[in-house]
Amino acid sequence: MDCLFCKIIAGDIPAQRLYEDDECVIIRDIEPQAPTHVLVLPRTHLDSLDKASASDDKLLGKLLLEAANFARREGFADAGYRVVINTNVDGGQTVFHLHVHLLAGRPFIFPPG
Amino acid sequence: MDCLFCKIIAGDIPAQRLYEDDECVIIRDIEPQAPTHVLVLPRTHLDSLDKASASDDKLLGKLLLEAANFARREGFADAGYRVVINTNVDGGQTVFHLHVHLLAGRPFIFPPG
Repeated sequence: MDCLFCKIIAGDIPAQRLYEDDECVIIRDIEPQAPTHVLVLPRTHLDSLDKASASDDKLLGKLLLEAANFARREGFADAGYRVVINTNVDGGQTVFHLHVHLLAGRPFIFPPG
Repeated sequence: MDCLFCKIIAGDIPAQRLYEDDECVIIRDIEPQAPTHVLVLPRTHLDSLDKASASDDKLLGKLLLEAANFARREGFADAGYRVVINTNVDGGQTVFHLHVHLLAGRPFIFPPG
């Protein structure tokens, strides 16, 4: 599988794991857009949100819950944060392994990009 | 319950429902930030993603799946779209009933706000 995030998850490409469990891994975004900018990656490869099916509901929810858990652990849940999922070209998706961006540490304005 | 989105879901405040099922309702954002900008609302009241618990995993996933389904029905899934969840003040959350923003119809840049 020629997928950057699959290689990171497998340990074939080194990356600091900020959190991991049986279903997901959290790493830092290498081009941070905020003081805190991490990615929640499902271990299971899905190209994008558009490729998820109804049976992926729990996994998708888990990714959001782990973003929220990370925010609480890091102490910025009360101040607030933004979660973003980019799908395909207009969305700004650059790695085609579904991932949830979690951004925090500054106020986020609208429009969101 | 003094919640704008609960009142919309209950029908006490009128809003065009673009989609609805037993778990969620999709309405237009009244301050659109893109040619298409809709909100996926869970019928169950949760103040924010920060207030979701582990047992909400399926519901949270369902919100993302219905955003993706809406994108496919409307014909912009292939071009792409952005999904955003704002939590608390830094995130830009203004209505404290969890909701998923789905934006499409133009390219979205980084930073996402």
